[in-house]
Amino acid sequence: MTERIQKKEYLNKIMTAMEAASLIKDGMTIATSGFTPAGYPKEVPKALAERIKREGTGLKINLFTGASVGDELDGELARAGAIKRRLPYQTQKDCRDKINCGEIDYIDMHLSHVSDFVRYGFLGKVDIAIIEAIAITEEGYIIPSTSLGNTPAFVENAEAVIIEVNTRHPKELQGMHDIYQPLKPPNRKPIPIISPKDRIGDTFIKVKPDKVKAIVLSDIPDSVKSFPSIDETSQQMADNLIGFLENEVKKGRLPENLLPLQSGVGSVANAVLGGLVKSKFCNLSIYSEVIQDSVLDLIDSGKVNIASGSSLTLSPKGMERFCNNIKEYKSKIILRPQEISNSPEVIRRLGVISMNTAIEVDIYGNVNSTNIMGTKMMNGIGGSGDFTRNAFISIFTTPSTAKAGSISSIVPLVSHCDHTEHDVQIIITEQGVADLRGLSPKEKAKAIIDNCVHSSYKDMLREYFNKQMNKCHISHRLDEALSWHYKFLQTGTMKNS
Amino acid sequence: MTERIQKKEYLNKIMTAMEAASLIKDGMTIATSGFTPAGYPKEVPKALAERIKREGTGLKINLFTGASVGDELDGELARAGAIKRRLPYQTQKDCRDKINCGEIDYIDMHLSHVSDFVRYGFLGKVDIAIIEAIAITEEGYIIPSTSLGNTPAFVENAEAVIIEVNTRHPKELQGMHDIYQPLKPPNRKPIPIISPKDRIGDTFIKVKPDKVKAIVLSDIPDSVKSFPSIDETSQQMADNLIGFLENEVKKGRLPENLLPLQSGVGSVANAVLGGLVKSKFCNLSIYSEVIQDSVLDLIDSGKVNIASGSSLTLSPKGMERFCNNIKEYKSKIILRPQEISNSPEVIRRLGVISMNTAIEVDIYGNVNSTNIMGTKMMNGIGGSGDFTRNAFISIFTTPSTAKAGSISSIVPLVSHCDHTEHDVQIIITEQGVADLRGLSPKEKAKAIIDNCVHSSYKDMLREYFNKQMNKCHISHRLDEALSWHYKFLQTGTMKNS
Ligand SMILES: CC(C)(COP(=O)(O)OP(=O)(O)OC[C@H]1O[C@@H](n2cnc3c(N)ncnc32)[C@H](O)[C@@H]1OP(=O)(O)O)[C@@H](O)C(=O)NCCC(=O)NCCS
Ligand SMILES: CC(C)(COP(=O)(O)OP(=O)(O)OC[C@H]1O[C@@H](n2cnc3c(N)ncnc32)[C@H](O)[C@@H]1OP(=O)(O)O)[C@@H](O)C(=O)NCCC(=O)NCCS
Repeated sequence: MTERIQKKEYLNKIMTAMEAASLIKDGMTIATSGFTPAGYPKEVPKALAERIKREGTGLKINLFTGASVGDELDGELARAGAIKRRLPYQTQKDCRDKINCGEIDYIDMHLSHVSDFVRYGFLGKVDIAIIEAIAITEEGYIIPSTSLGNTPAFVENAEAVIIEVNTRHPKELQGMHDIYQPLKPPNRKPIPIISPKDRIGDTFIKVKPDKVKAIVLSDIPDSVKSFPSIDETSQQMADNLIGFLENEVKKGRLPENLLPLQSGVGSVANAVLGGLVKSKFCNLSIYSEVIQDSVLDLIDSGKVNIASGSSLTLSPKGMERFCNNIKEYKSKIILRPQEISNSPEVIRRLGVISMNTAIEVDIYGNVNSTNIMGTKMMNGIGGSGDFTRNAFISIFTTPSTAKAGSISSIVPLVSHCDHTEHDVQIIITEQGVADLRGLSPKEKAKAIIDNCVHSSYKDMLREYFNKQMNKCHISHRLDEALSWHYKFLQTGTMKNS
Repeated sequence: MTERIQKKEYLNKIMTAMEAASLIKDGMTIATSGFTPAGYPKEVPKALAERIKREGTGLKINLFTGASVGDELDGELARAGAIKRRLPYQTQKDCRDKINCGEIDYIDMHLSHVSDFVRYGFLGKVDIAIIEAIAITEEGYIIPSTSLGNTPAFVENAEAVIIEVNTRHPKELQGMHDIYQPLKPPNRKPIPIISPKDRIGDTFIKVKPDKVKAIVLSDIPDSVKSFPSIDETSQQMADNLIGFLENEVKKGRLPENLLPLQSGVGSVANAVLGGLVKSKFCNLSIYSEVIQDSVLDLIDSGKVNIASGSSLTLSPKGMERFCNNIKEYKSKIILRPQEISNSPEVIRRLGVISMNTAIEVDIYGNVNSTNIMGTKMMNGIGGSGDFTRNAFISIFTTPSTAKAGSISSIVPLVSHCDHTEHDVQIIITEQGVADLRGLSPKEKAKAIIDNCVHSSYKDMLREYFNKQMNKCHISHRLDEALSWHYKFLQTGTMKNS
């Protein structure tokens, strides 16, 4: 134990998860570590859920995290009915269901905004930060675990801190983090990153000792699932994307080794990263959010020299692989707070190529990343806005249809808009690529319909587009613009009967 | 003449506007200086329009500018049918009409993106840059006139350059500009501005002498109109806005002297700046786009120490006032390229307070800044996205109704989305203020309906919102979401008959 908790004065703060959970009161705002199912606290939320179920008090909290977290946190607390308000991103089914039945108030924020909003006092006071760590040093510094997320800002701004020291994570993670905290305006300085490999901060988080109210031991692993094997559609989208990048190099618009890559999560993202392993690109770099298994492949193949992100989100197999070669990987991976991994300043400076997945896209290039049929939250916008707006080239991928073809992912008008026509440059489906740079709305519509739409919807969309007799900048019939979605909700398909 | 054109070798490049206009061929991309009706070329476009009318050749160009420009450029060329493609912003009636009848392809871009898109080759090659200057130095450096816009990047990337030396502008403008050009990734460095007053570049633009194909003399003034007097609605919105800022100071979320202010253009913006003159705030700074007459008032009243923008857009009266006290104003005003005035990096670092006007807002906090009824372009997004997304606090103002009350500016769903729910924090109408920070969509809807909607639409919006029986994250009936707009188009009013 003293190996993981080196500050002697902290040893008497060790308590059971249940004891720590008893510090949490109804109405509190609890801010935790965790970014994608990596580095989130597990024991205390589980104990809290258990306590709530046992006591039946109906205790509810506001839960702030880095991004999505594992079932031990979002799942347990959602099922216990303990979440009143949730931000900024989630992917857990029970949590999502409660958001969609109106039980949880969900605030869907750009990931780069969260630390600032807390720092500026816009989200009220944070009562307790619960932080997963791999160790606490002699000086009392916290060594975070597999992610950074908003942890530094949460620790700084919370009134009290609970630390879960997780002995399951290898101690050797120490040194991977690069923790830089911007000051508040008007005293803020440039973030001095000029290359993805730059280290600009500390490897630990400082905390006022009297804020630390509990230390809990844990050895529960992050619950990261392996990706299913790559399906044909994803492979085709990945091929189209890599073909597009190759062409940009040929045209002299991108250097041979591209520019730093950002990639969303999900099966397409996975296929793209897989495709890069087989491509002839080399000396690549990654400036993204999530370091997943496929990044290890890219490092192993010698394609990627440096990968910067906010979380190390590895499947159990990936983690084993990581541990077996930890020194090599440590020299090529940097974990940063999400306000730095997702910083508009750094993304625009580095010229990041952003690659994210859309739920649906409209013919004018607006993208819906969040709300199915405009009303049901899927996950949230995550970092897709931070990257898309500031990217050198912003790319969205989506299969041309969803739900076995009954939905066209390309619609007349998105039912919810997360990325506007001003931000979206390239649309890629398994059908092809639409390059929207420098096009007017009507030219965009032609490019998207011709290149990206599935054959079973092409004529319908052409008809919608051509029928607009009203000459305007953007052609819409407002009584029909959302009729595809409405028809789906009424009949179960967007197709004409 | 040699006072304004000091480089001797350039004297033999002086020619008439008509001679210079003859360099322009069908299909060319012409990129000009100009940002709001300030600092745009006037003689050459007028001559070009005349030539086209005379020759009847149907010559058409792609026209890129900084932002909106005066009638001599957008108006003359639009009326001559000479514009095929236009970006990134315009406000001229004839140009707008041709966009809305489908004759001009308009690309509505974030102002901060334009220089990069040109530099990266995303918009094809720029054939000729036409730049208004106040002088050319002995070294051949261009001293720009009343705006900077994209001028440095256009000069750098164009194949040829035409300079209009405008003797109407006072020579003393020299020294006001601060010209900094970012390198292309991967070599880009931090933009070293840490305060609105920081000067980081040159006061002139360098150009390869052999690129300069023509120099034309001009003495046409910028066509800036004075603002009409402030109406009651604008005054009430301004009062609400200043009240909001005062409360933020009281709550400790803003310093006493606020943070750098950005303000859109238009009558509300004008009323707000006027309101600040009368307020008790002092030691203010401005980090914005347009320095308009009211900024002179703020400087004169000692309220503002420094104003940074991309253009000096003064009415004839304002310009007279400026000239009478040029030394004082020059020490307090800096003109920057629009990629710097609108830089996400600098805006987020400085913590700018953004204040822009919306065409319409929906109950979930999405904002339409551009397209009336989702189809007819008004002006364009301009810099509103650059500021809103990166602001310390992002504010939108709009009168609660338009067209004599027949339109509610607050609707169930915006008919076009320029700023998403993720970006918009504060909505202000003459009715009141809705603070959306940290609220879920349904809470936002309540805040907006309760505080901002006009009494004649309040019950209707409440009914729309409450009727949604489907429990979702966001409540919409997709068959009704755009029905308010549709009804207006059919009946001329959004009100129930
Ligand atoms: C958009 C996003 C949900 C896609 O995720 P994915 O795993 O690649 O995609 P899937 O194909 O599995 O789609 C997810 C679900 O949405 C459904 N869906 C996809 N497109 C749809 C559409 N147009 N209409 C209705 N449903 C749709 C799928 O059917 C699937 O539903 P299911 O869970 O019931 O099977 C995901 O990328 C996301 O959350 N993006 C926003 C955040 C982001 O971009 N992060 C990256 C930077 S942080
Ligand atoms: C939104 C914007 C057009 C408002 O301009 P303004 O001068 O303050 O507003 P006005 O009230 O005069 O409205 C302009 C027109 O839109 C109409 N309008 C306003 N709201 C409307 C609505 N909800 N529905 C239909 N028409 C509407 C007005 O009636 C007026 O029409 P008119 O010219 O036929 O009289 C202007 O602020 C803009 O272009 N914004 C986008 C760019 C920007 O924000 N720039 C700032 C940073 S660059």
